[in-house]
Amino acid sequence: MKITFCCTGTKPEPWLAGLRAAFPGAQVEVWQAGAPAADHAVVWAPPQQFFDEQTQLKGIFNIGAGVDALLKLRLPPRATVVRLDDAGMSVQMAEYVCHAVIRYFREFDGYEADVKAGKWSYRKPRERALFPVGVMGLGVLGQRVAQALTQFEFPVLGWSRSVKAIEGVRCFAGAAQFNDFLRASKVLVNLLPLTPETRDIMRLDTLAQLQAGGYVINVARGAHLVEEDLLTLLDRGQLAGATLDVFRTEPLPAEHPFWRHPQITITPHTSARTLRDESIAQIAGKIRALEAGQPIVGIVDSVRGY
Amino acid sequence: MKITFCCTGTKPEPWLAGLRAAFPGAQVEVWQAGAPAADHAVVWAPPQQFFDEQTQLKGIFNIGAGVDALLKLRLPPRATVVRLDDAGMSVQMAEYVCHAVIRYFREFDGYEADVKAGKWSYRKPRERALFPVGVMGLGVLGQRVAQALTQFEFPVLGWSRSVKAIEGVRCFAGAAQFNDFLRASKVLVNLLPLTPETRDIMRLDTLAQLQAGGYVINVARGAHLVEEDLLTLLDRGQLAGATLDVFRTEPLPAEHPFWRHPQITITPHTSARTLRDESIAQIAGKIRALEAGQPIVGIVDSVRGY
Repeated sequence: MKITFCCTGTKPEPWLAGLRAAFPGAQVEVWQAGAPAADHAVVWAPPQQFFDEQTQLKGIFNIGAGVDALLKLRLPPRATVVRLDDAGMSVQMAEYVCHAVIRYFREFDGYEADVKAGKWSYRKPRERALFPVGVMGLGVLGQRVAQALTQFEFPVLGWSRSVKAIEGVRCFAGAAQFNDFLRASKVLVNLLPLTPETRDIMRLDTLAQLQAGGYVINVARGAHLVEEDLLTLLDRGQLAGATLDVFRTEPLPAEHPFWRHPQITITPHTSARTLRDESIAQIAGKIRALEAGQPIVGIVDSVRGY
Repeated sequence: MKITFCCTGTKPEPWLAGLRAAFPGAQVEVWQAGAPAADHAVVWAPPQQFFDEQTQLKGIFNIGAGVDALLKLRLPPRATVVRLDDAGMSVQMAEYVCHAVIRYFREFDGYEADVKAGKWSYRKPRERALFPVGVMGLGVLGQRVAQALTQFEFPVLGWSRSVKAIEGVRCFAGAAQFNDFLRASKVLVNLLPLTPETRDIMRLDTLAQLQAGGYVINVARGAHLVEEDLLTLLDRGQLAGATLDVFRTEPLPAEHPFWRHPQITITPHTSARTLRDESIAQIAGKIRALEAGQPIVGIVDSVRGY
């Protein structure tokens, strides 16, 4: 078996070592133009030339949860495209989102400002029942985030394309229930896949439906959010803050207003990092299953877009 | 039945209204010197005179979890002293502690500094397995905090006076296992009751046993921590940071070094606030049980000290 590795911006050696350890008999190499045909590919942001040459691939394993960039390329006709499921990412998402929600709910920024001003302050606690958190996207990551939030007893709502049932989460589904979901949420957490349907889904007319003084937490893709519309709603006071890990252009350009906006917290696309060992173990298991003709989870539907 | 209310620094009206609603036939009044004998008292930091006069009290209900201040007073001989159990406090503690632990683990302060410097930064993720969190005190609050931390897949350790078993938590007990517990912890969370045995429990020789670059989170009582010893260990670089909600003197004096220490985050005793409606409901239920001769939880053992 031949496995080719083509991951932009990723140090290949530890991945090669891990894959070779998992498949002692296989040839595992970094892809180079003109390389012989491989059976499986481990990829992140590969060039079109890669797929134009490797037309006989059986499995294409994306080392991330989002495959929006991959699906813009012309892919080999018979290849199964597979995304990472969890692989240590869902706990990171739960951490990131819970930290941001608690920070807003408990007004830790306000306390920090008080302390800087030398003030031993009293702030009336916010009411938990009036702090509903809506999670858009209820895949592996969204479900984990929603469940983590229920533990802190926030009212938790979920919205997804198809109907889901998650304990402790009030689930909405499809376009018909989207406005009801937004109006019932004070905090909006985005964990949707990026598809033509979800691009720009957070914009003036949708975000304006969140409860007054609401918050936006975007940990999915920058293109889900119309950035100037967020600024408009913050300026108008309709929204109170945003925590953003992803942006339309990354790295965020130096002149971008998000860098210094007092109500916006930004992080450099770090909410859930691909963990190498977990990912290698998961990909190795799926290659074995594919080779044995067994079913696997995480197969990308190129029509649906994720 | 007569219920007297004697809570320093607490607006009485809403408490009286809630207690009257719970006991329509009872007399519920704010205590004044010379008032007639009551059956039950709802108290927070009452003066000694209160107990010297109200010698016939059957139940004394403290509107907080910690009774250390109360037990310094001479109490009526036959009274049952009762503390609040949870009543909305455990979820607040879980929020406060999880927020602080995640903030340290995910280096959110470092990212914030990078953003202020205009830097789109890369930081190698910390290893979760190397970030064990030890919780001292495994009562209602400590257990809830420990369980909340397990959800984020940190190795969680617990230490308590008597042996406890909590799913997903490696439990240590008693003085004999205290050093083992400390040496196995990188983050130390304090939720102990304040008693003669636990006073000053966080001091140079104990905190120095935490894993290098460790953190202290104190949400119990200020007198658990020898404040100058914490400063020494931070200065030496043995500890990396502390999040403190309680202090030996509160409000924290203006000249105190904690106000401006770059590695110390302080909040004004706000980690878990008494929630009025939940507390009234709990106290009313316990008064009914006591009157009916039924057992209740939360009875304070004055010898043990909590």
